[in-house]
This record gives sequence, C-alpha cells and structure tokens, in this order.
Amino acid sequence: MTQIDIKSSKRQEMINITSSVASKVLASGIKKGLCIVYVPHTTAGVTINESADPAVRNDLINTLNRLIPKDPSYEHAEGNSDSHVKSTLVGVSATVPIEQGRMMLGIWQAIYFCEFDGPRSRHVDIKIIEG
Amino acid sequence: MTQIDIKSSKRQEMINITSSVASKVLASGIKKGLCIVYVPHTTAGVTINESADPAVRNDLINTLNRLIPKDPSYEHAEGNSDSHVKSTLVGVSATVPIEQGRMMLGIWQAIYFCEFDGPRSRHVDIKIIEG
Amino acid sequence: MTQIDIKSSKRQEMINITSSVASKVLASGIKKGLCIVYVPHTTAGVTINESADPAVRNDLINTLNRLIPKDPSYEHAEGNSDSHVKSTLVGVSATVPIEQGRMMLGIWQAIYFCEFDGPRSRHVDIKIIEG
Repeated sequence: MTQIDIKSSKRQEMINITSSVASKVLASGIKKGLCIVYVPHTTAGVTINESADPAVRNDLINTLNRLIPKDPSYEHAEGNSDSHVKSTLVGVSATVPIEQGRMMLGIWQAIYFCEFDGPRSRHVDIKIIEG
Repeated sequence: MTQIDIKSSKRQEMINITSSVASKVLASGIKKGLCIVYVPHTTAGVTINESADPAVRNDLINTLNRLIPKDPSYEHAEGNSDSHVKSTLVGVSATVPIEQGRMMLGIWQAIYFCEFDGPRSRHVDIKIIEG
Repeated sequence: MTQIDIKSSKRQEMINITSSVASKVLASGIKKGLCIVYVPHTTAGVTINESADPAVRNDLINTLNRLIPKDPSYEHAEGNSDSHVKSTLVGVSATVPIEQGRMMLGIWQAIYFCEFDGPRSRHVDIKIIEG
C-alpha cells in the first residue's frame, strides 16, 4: 500500500489525483485487479466524475453547499458538520478495475479528492489487489 | 473483465441488471470473491436497492430531481450538471461479495444501472476477483 | 465470509460496528488485503465517519431527514421510501484496506451501520480478501 500526499488550498475543492493514482498502479506492476483509493479523513471524500469542463466541479460543490450549507444550527460545535455529511454522501473510497496494467476509467472520468474542510494537509491510501 | 451493454430509453431511468451480472459471475466459475460493477460514465451511476415495488425506483428518481433539478442556473453549459451531481451522490461502482458461486445479494436487493442523462447507449464493466 | 448481527432500537440510528468488524479481520489471520462490509438490506446502509463526537451522527441523521423527510407523498405505499433513498445515497458497502493484519482506518474514523427503517434485527456480511 502506498500514499499520495495532498495539500488543499480552499475550504472546499475537488483535486484531480488521477495521474498520481495511475503512477502507483504502474509502479505496482500489477496487470489485472482492482485499485482502491481510500480517504482516511472524516471531512473529505473521493469521487470519479468529469474532467473536461471545470464548471462541472463548481456545480458539484455549489449544489452540495445549497443542499448542505455550512450553518450555525448544527449540534456538533466544530463548525464543520456540513463537511462530515458531505463526506458520507460522496464516500471515502473509490474502486476502479485494472486491466493490462491500467485503470479502466471511462474516457471522460477522472478521480477527484474532495476537500470539504480545508485548507489542510491530507493523504489518500492506494491499495492495489491482483486478481 | 467483461461488459454488459445497456440501452436507456428515458432521460432518467433505473435499469435492473441483476440477472446480466449474475450470468457473468456464473460464467467466471469463481466460487468465492467479489463482483465489482463499474460504470465508466460521468452522468450515470449504479446502486443496489429494492426490486419488488417499481414505486421505489420512481420515488428515488423523483426525490433526486426534487433535490437536484435540471435547471438553467448551473455553470456547466451542457444542461446536464444535475446528472453529474447525481452520479457522484449515487456512485459509479458497486461491490458485492460472492460465495458458493453466487452474489450474496439480500433477498429484496437488485442491482440497478442509473441513467441520469439518457436516452443513450451505455455499458458497465464487470470485474470478478477470487478470494 | 462471516456475519455480524445488529439490533437497532430506533427508526434511524448510526450503530458503531468498528470493533466487531476488527475482530473478524483479526480472526481471519489475513495480513494484507481488503475488508468489505456489505449490507444486504434495502432500507439501511453503511458509512465511515467520525466517532469522537456523537453530535456528528445526530447532525448526519437530521440533515438526511431535512433533505429526505418521511412523508406521505411518496408513491411507494409502505411508508419507508425515505429509507430506500437514504440507503442509495449512503450506500450499502464499505471497503477498507488491511495492512499488517489491521484495517487502515483513519484516526477519527469508525464504521457505522446506518438504520433508516428500524427498529429491526439486521446483519452485515464481512468479506475479507487477501492481496
């Protein structure tokens, strides 16, 4: 298992980590199997979505904020309950099949680390299983 | 790894692919392991939910539309930002354990391909891991 | 594959199952691989989120209820359409890497069974894959 270090620069941000994950898959030498991207944080997540138009990421973050605003009415006193809820809805792991040594992402897909309570230093764990 | 081809007929639709996935598991000959259903699209998803009453799928789609309407106010100009957001919230992969050569779905569970921007020709990748 | 039996005591509840899952990982003797927690129900889910402050779980349940209320206007006549929608949004499986015989959960992370239509007797399947 290896890690990818991530430094977010805003409270909320979708950071494209596809090439870093692809490097780990290549370095593993594994030709067939699964790549799991695991986020060990409780106010962040990981998703796979479109990479072509950055507006998609803005719309995603803005929609999450409309549905789950940062708001003083939550019970949890740290001011980041919205971030915890977003983490659960987006999820903290992504699973991608590997064939011929490469992740089988769709042509428009990229892997995004989703920061919901930055800026912070973060990391993701990359687990590659042969099979 | 194998594929299942899917043809959606509406803008939004939940298509039961359980028997197609089960056939791939059977054909693999693998008795114990994991089945991963992977959606390589950015305006679709996959979920596991009830198959008995079709009203559950209608309620799911209607609730997603109430929360994330197709709306002209998004930044992304293609008119399908809602579809991208739904894809991230529902997710693009499902993982089901295999025992005795069969997926261990619950008695009421079925696997649904979720079309959020159809009608289109789509496919899912089926990855079966032994272990 | 093994099971963990769960008894919920409310309609909605997040039940910390981390130590039960960790016992299954330990008992498997597997040092490296994946642990999959699979929920075979259609009105429940599983998520990984903060364990330190119980207010985080209250905020999560209250936010889900604000977005997806139990409401008489759904088409499905059993009165639990909200539970089915929550199940799809939270998800019915969690995947955690295993290294040195232990799940690589982050320091603040715990695994929660999410009851959305209790109280009921439930179970989760634990599948551990070596690799």
